[in-house]
Amino acid sequence: MNIYELIKKKRDGGELSKKEIDYMINGFIKKDIPDYQMAAFLMAVFYKGMTARECVDLTMTMVDSGDRVDLSGISGFKVDKHSTGGVGDTTTLVLAPLVAASGGIVAKMTGRELGHTGGTVDKLESIPGMKVELPKEEFMDIVNRIHVSLIAQTGTLAPADKHIYALRNVTATVDSIPLIAGSIMSKKLAAGSDGIVLDVKTGVGAFMQKYEDALELARTMVDIGEGAGKRVVALITSMEQPLGYAIGNAIEVKEAIDTLSGSGPQDLVDLILELGSNMLLISGVCGSREDARKRIRENIDNKKGLAKLGELIKAQGGNPDVIGNTGLLPQPKKIIEIKAPAGGYVESIDALEVGLSSKVLGAGRKTKDEPIDLSIGIFLKKKVGDEVRKGEPLALFHSDGDSSKVEAAKEKFLNAYRIGPKKISPPRFFYARVSKDGVEELK
Amino acid sequence: MNIYELIKKKRDGGELSKKEIDYMINGFIKKDIPDYQMAAFLMAVFYKGMTARECVDLTMTMVDSGDRVDLSGISGFKVDKHSTGGVGDTTTLVLAPLVAASGGIVAKMTGRELGHTGGTVDKLESIPGMKVELPKEEFMDIVNRIHVSLIAQTGTLAPADKHIYALRNVTATVDSIPLIAGSIMSKKLAAGSDGIVLDVKTGVGAFMQKYEDALELARTMVDIGEGAGKRVVALITSMEQPLGYAIGNAIEVKEAIDTLSGSGPQDLVDLILELGSNMLLISGVCGSREDARKRIRENIDNKKGLAKLGELIKAQGGNPDVIGNTGLLPQPKKIIEIKAPAGGYVESIDALEVGLSSKVLGAGRKTKDEPIDLSIGIFLKKKVGDEVRKGEPLALFHSDGDSSKVEAAKEKFLNAYRIGPKKISPPRFFYARVSKDGVEELK
Repeated sequence: MNIYELIKKKRDGGELSKKEIDYMINGFIKKDIPDYQMAAFLMAVFYKGMTARECVDLTMTMVDSGDRVDLSGISGFKVDKHSTGGVGDTTTLVLAPLVAASGGIVAKMTGRELGHTGGTVDKLESIPGMKVELPKEEFMDIVNRIHVSLIAQTGTLAPADKHIYALRNVTATVDSIPLIAGSIMSKKLAAGSDGIVLDVKTGVGAFMQKYEDALELARTMVDIGEGAGKRVVALITSMEQPLGYAIGNAIEVKEAIDTLSGSGPQDLVDLILELGSNMLLISGVCGSREDARKRIRENIDNKKGLAKLGELIKAQGGNPDVIGNTGLLPQPKKIIEIKAPAGGYVESIDALEVGLSSKVLGAGRKTKDEPIDLSIGIFLKKKVGDEVRKGEPLALFHSDGDSSKVEAAKEKFLNAYRIGPKKISPPRFFYARVSKDGVEELK
Repeated sequence: MNIYELIKKKRDGGELSKKEIDYMINGFIKKDIPDYQMAAFLMAVFYKGMTARECVDLTMTMVDSGDRVDLSGISGFKVDKHSTGGVGDTTTLVLAPLVAASGGIVAKMTGRELGHTGGTVDKLESIPGMKVELPKEEFMDIVNRIHVSLIAQTGTLAPADKHIYALRNVTATVDSIPLIAGSIMSKKLAAGSDGIVLDVKTGVGAFMQKYEDALELARTMVDIGEGAGKRVVALITSMEQPLGYAIGNAIEVKEAIDTLSGSGPQDLVDLILELGSNMLLISGVCGSREDARKRIRENIDNKKGLAKLGELIKAQGGNPDVIGNTGLLPQPKKIIEIKAPAGGYVESIDALEVGLSSKVLGAGRKTKDEPIDLSIGIFLKKKVGDEVRKGEPLALFHSDGDSSKVEAAKEKFLNAYRIGPKKISPPRFFYARVSKDGVEELK
């Protein structure tokens, strides 16, 4: 096999075989194929795309480049959930116990992410005593017992993706749908669950700004997952503004507890019902989405989801009292009101900028080993469509008291808000549901 | 400026400024911009092309990366000629003295090329005593005196092109018309002449197999050259079979002498008339192509072109008697007839394969410093359209007597010939003439 010929084949719109994809990706990992040839290949893929078959093969080659989480010691259908980037995305903390309380099984290993805020693992660590680094046997034992566990990922999932991503990131080949889909799905498939519900964000704050692109990404990921023998459903949802009100770590745990207690923000609750019902459906727990939705709704109302979160915290060494008293969570040194510079209606909130301002405030990390002050975060008081008077608080900054960080974050934060004179309705939230059976519009 | 943004701009079909192109190319040469980013950029250019303005700017940036030959010490309009790859392309040896004899000025520094056969410099070295490495002052002095000199290139012309070409060659980004045009024109513009006649080959044996591609390449090169203030004309000619009969070094010098003596192969003579008349026209020596053509024709018939070759040889230290006695050229150890394996009509001759077989026979070099046996070459006895009987010679191999080379070359050579039962007419030779005034079809 000849790397030059493979670049040329893709350049001219040809389809590579599984063998050819293996040769390319494995050669790149072993440094037999130099960066520059891979870069040219990636740019050819950017223009010429990949067939459904190539996407599955690329993904599986990346899965095979690293460890796979073996969940076979856990009986039953394990279901996972993934969101393509979100700001203030508290969903996992709510969904995992709620789905488990409703009959599903969630065995999730999750990374310590960089980015706007900490990852799920960081959020969990704001619960006093909570351990997120457990031996695999203990993790599996907990799931077998209470049907849910969330721990920090060990092993290296899909390292090929990491190497390829690093190259894409400097060669303007990130925004290629087959490559994005392969990147996401290789890690999800390596994570070992039997089914995956994907939340594909679209809108100003999302990676896929256009609905058509989000739809194509969703379709491609569903095809890859189903092609690899998993059950996969994707929802296309809005990222026109941050989800819920909380952005940070402890502050998002509090919002998750509130949501499981029945007093969550409407958009977060709606998303939980949609994602959760699909997770139960593909798990085979419920026969229809309507039944599954009803069950999730009941388990919020009767607080079984909240109780399951308590069980989860206890199983992982944390203080379960937190579910009744969120004052046990890390508290910020200082809460600062960020006031509206003008009155009117909130026209838009740039979710990405809000996420970045929470990072500037201190809620995210720059390097993998940096500690985070888990108490820091932003609590929104106004969302799109809300009326606001000049001087009324737009948000509360949960701060460590460092005023230079506050000033920088405030500037970024205020830039994210657009306030205008006309009343507008909140943006559309759900767009579509994509499964192997096709695309269904959601309202 | 940010390299990532420049790749993205081109990826999305944008036009780069001169400053941006400079930043990119110079950064690459200085190794500030890594190979992989350049490779992604080149692939984006492959798909998105470059505007006429970008092509000029890219070319001039590459010219500025190295030395320029300063021909200002030579008075008058200096005219150059370039062929986009040819097999058995004896034209320079015929054209240079003929144009000089007709009133033009040819001051040509030429490289020692790798490839199927030696370059022009190697061919000249088969003339006893002929020096091709002369001090620049002597070169200019000769041109001022007799209006022609051909020597080996000194200095480094357009080194950026060399680096970029090396990367294109391993990333499947060679066949991009803006990049090919920039590569050729950067070297021609650095070579210092005031006008250039380009011979763009098309057909099975050529780089541009399709006429449309050859036309686009011709147009792009003319635009670049005129944009850089030079007078440029391009002819699109056939490369369906080797030009003339001789492929090699001494053997091509002999063919050149025969052509200047009035007994050249028809296709070579036709090409000489077409290229030469355009060289005289852009030099301002003649007012029309018809007049120029007539003058070239006369200077073949009256042997003034041949006499000029004698002057050139003498001026560069060679033995001018060679023009009257080609027996003074290096003679092969052995001449071997290559017999037709079947009878019929020659349907096609793959020029590239014939070139490669002459290399296998020993007429070319693999590394820049390797000596060549200048006596080796192939003399064709049959061309497309000719009738041939089984066992009749297709060609004569001028060999050093190494039978293993002969066997290998013979196999390759016979593969290049297709002989069929039906009489066919020789292929079309001239397609079009491209100048700043437009495209004119030639018959």
